Amino acid sequence: MYYIGIDLGGTNIAIGLVDDNGKILHKDSVPTQRDREYPEIIKDMAMLTLKVIEDAGVSIAEVKSIGVGSPGTPNCTDGILVYANNLKFKNVPIRTELQKYIDLPVYLDNDANVAGLAESVAGAAKGAAHSVTITLGTGVGGGIIIDGKVYSGFNNAGAELGHMVIVSDGERCTCGRNGCWEAYASATACISQTKEAVGLNPGSLINKLVNGDLNKISAKTAFDAAKQGDAAGQKIVTQYIKFIGEGLVNIVNIFRPEILVIGGGVCKEGEYLLKPLREYIKTNTYGLEGIADTEIKVAVMGSDAGIVGAAMLGK
Amino acid sequence: MYYIGIDLGGTNIAIGLVDDNGKILHKDSVPTQRDREYPEIIKDMAMLTLKVIEDAGVSIAEVKSIGVGSPGTPNCTDGILVYANNLKFKNVPIRTELQKYIDLPVYLDNDANVAGLAESVAGAAKGAAHSVTITLGTGVGGGIIIDGKVYSGFNNAGAELGHMVIVSDGERCTCGRNGCWEAYASATACISQTKEAVGLNPGSLINKLVNGDLNKISAKTAFDAAKQGDAAGQKIVTQYIKFIGEGLVNIVNIFRPEILVIGGGVCKEGEYLLKPLREYIKTNTYGLEGIADTEIKVAVMGSDAGIVGAAMLGK
Repeated sequence: MYYIGIDLGGTNIAIGLVDDNGKILHKDSVPTQRDREYPEIIKDMAMLTLKVIEDAGVSIAEVKSIGVGSPGTPNCTDGILVYANNLKFKNVPIRTELQKYIDLPVYLDNDANVAGLAESVAGAAKGAAHSVTITLGTGVGGGIIIDGKVYSGFNNAGAELGHMVIVSDGERCTCGRNGCWEAYASATACISQTKEAVGLNPGSLINKLVNGDLNKISAKTAFDAAKQGDAAGQKIVTQYIKFIGEGLVNIVNIFRPEILVIGGGVCKEGEYLLKPLREYIKTNTYGLEGIADTEIKVAVMGSDAGIVGAAMLGK
Repeated sequence: MYYIGIDLGGTNIAIGLVDDNGKILHKDSVPTQRDREYPEIIKDMAMLTLKVIEDAGVSIAEVKSIGVGSPGTPNCTDGILVYANNLKFKNVPIRTELQKYIDLPVYLDNDANVAGLAESVAGAAKGAAHSVTITLGTGVGGGIIIDGKVYSGFNNAGAELGHMVIVSDGERCTCGRNGCWEAYASATACISQTKEAVGLNPGSLINKLVNGDLNKISAKTAFDAAKQGDAAGQKIVTQYIKFIGEGLVNIVNIFRPEILVIGGGVCKEGEYLLKPLREYIKTNTYGLEGIADTEIKVAVMGSDAGIVGAAMLGK
């Protein structure tokens, strides 16, 4: 059987036909044009779904289901997108609307959960019954897979791993709480930490790398400076890796997944990030010698994660 | 069918015959005499099991399984107690030893997981598919129930919710890490916080309550003083409740269980503890209006939790 996966983003709607192994056979995309009313956007989703099935040379009878991954808070049971700031969606009946055009089961979940499922079915955590996928991006997203299925609590609002406080009374988080992991370990946080450090160390190489324009600082800047031996850069990177590690150790202590997957742009730093991170996790994880360790891996699904994970919701 | 539950403690071995609803039909206990070699201790467990079955007037053919709840780290798959400091047990083959005397399936899990299962089957979380039970005692224990079953990761070493850092670089924890929730929210931590506060406020009512003997301070002392209007006591209690809340909010954000159960001596404070705790959780939990909330309840299984939860491992 085949499965349709829809990655509903703020910019594009990407749709793919996926097989049982999580392999994309054919995919296509259209701009979301998110300022439109939801019936128009969902009609586009339906039309592109039918086109992808046709272009793949598959009959609709061979398609088992449609899965939708979206930002925001889903009501998975009823197939309703309760809220998605990015899309100005509020209580949008994704399932009912899609089924006006296509008579197939429709599943819905949020992007972080779907990314976790994609890694579990076809990516870095393939073969593991229990895995957790963390995405270090603008925020910190978490996808928890237990016994091969997405776990997000009784109301689908769980798995908010980025909103685990690691510094009580610490930095203000966008969620309103203080000290969330996201406020320390996201790419956004890394940029803030870098800007702050440059303020204190105007002679740092970081300043040169951005020609004195602090707005050009990215999550990569401190790593670039550190690799060239800049003391301020190295201090930022060491501290940032510790913040990432603090949350990851918490996750290992709580979930002991077979595989813990880390994704997001910062993973491009490769072993420069991963080696100290693995050491930090090994040193700080609770427990004894002689027990099998959680394996730390980098996400491999990239921009296909949304399509594949969404498709696999129906498997 | 009936189930045998064995609560293997450092002081006593308590054994009960339990029905499908988690109701104890008959129970008995013997001293552990923990300085003995493990074959002797396990022989006692087997003999008392047979006696409990006989005294209950049930035939062994009506007993489905034996479950053992113990402190320490279990290998649930192989029925081996990998390590239990309390009992000086290391790689003890509980299942194999018990089966020398009784030909029944033997299950093993640790006490915090078993307590969570007891609350899930017959206690405060009865009827909930997903629940988390936290025990605030000498340490902070966690039992995670997902789809009615204990979840503790691929190697049974997970669910160490007490060893989630909530204050990066904070108080030293017994596990070697700094800033674990246990180091702030356990009864032990409350006692330390009270002692420290008395040192800074020698005129506090707390000093009177213990006749100036700081060794008499318990986790209850600050609450007693606070209720009588003592400023130092109130400050400790407010701060301690916040520390408990910080970890509980993390757990709600991560698991969104239908029911979050809190146990341990401090729960005897009742609404004096629970009211501010519920408010803290409501204010700080991630998410939106209109989504069903996790319910916060107090553990009800008390000292029977070990027997009932262990028995239910075989259900």
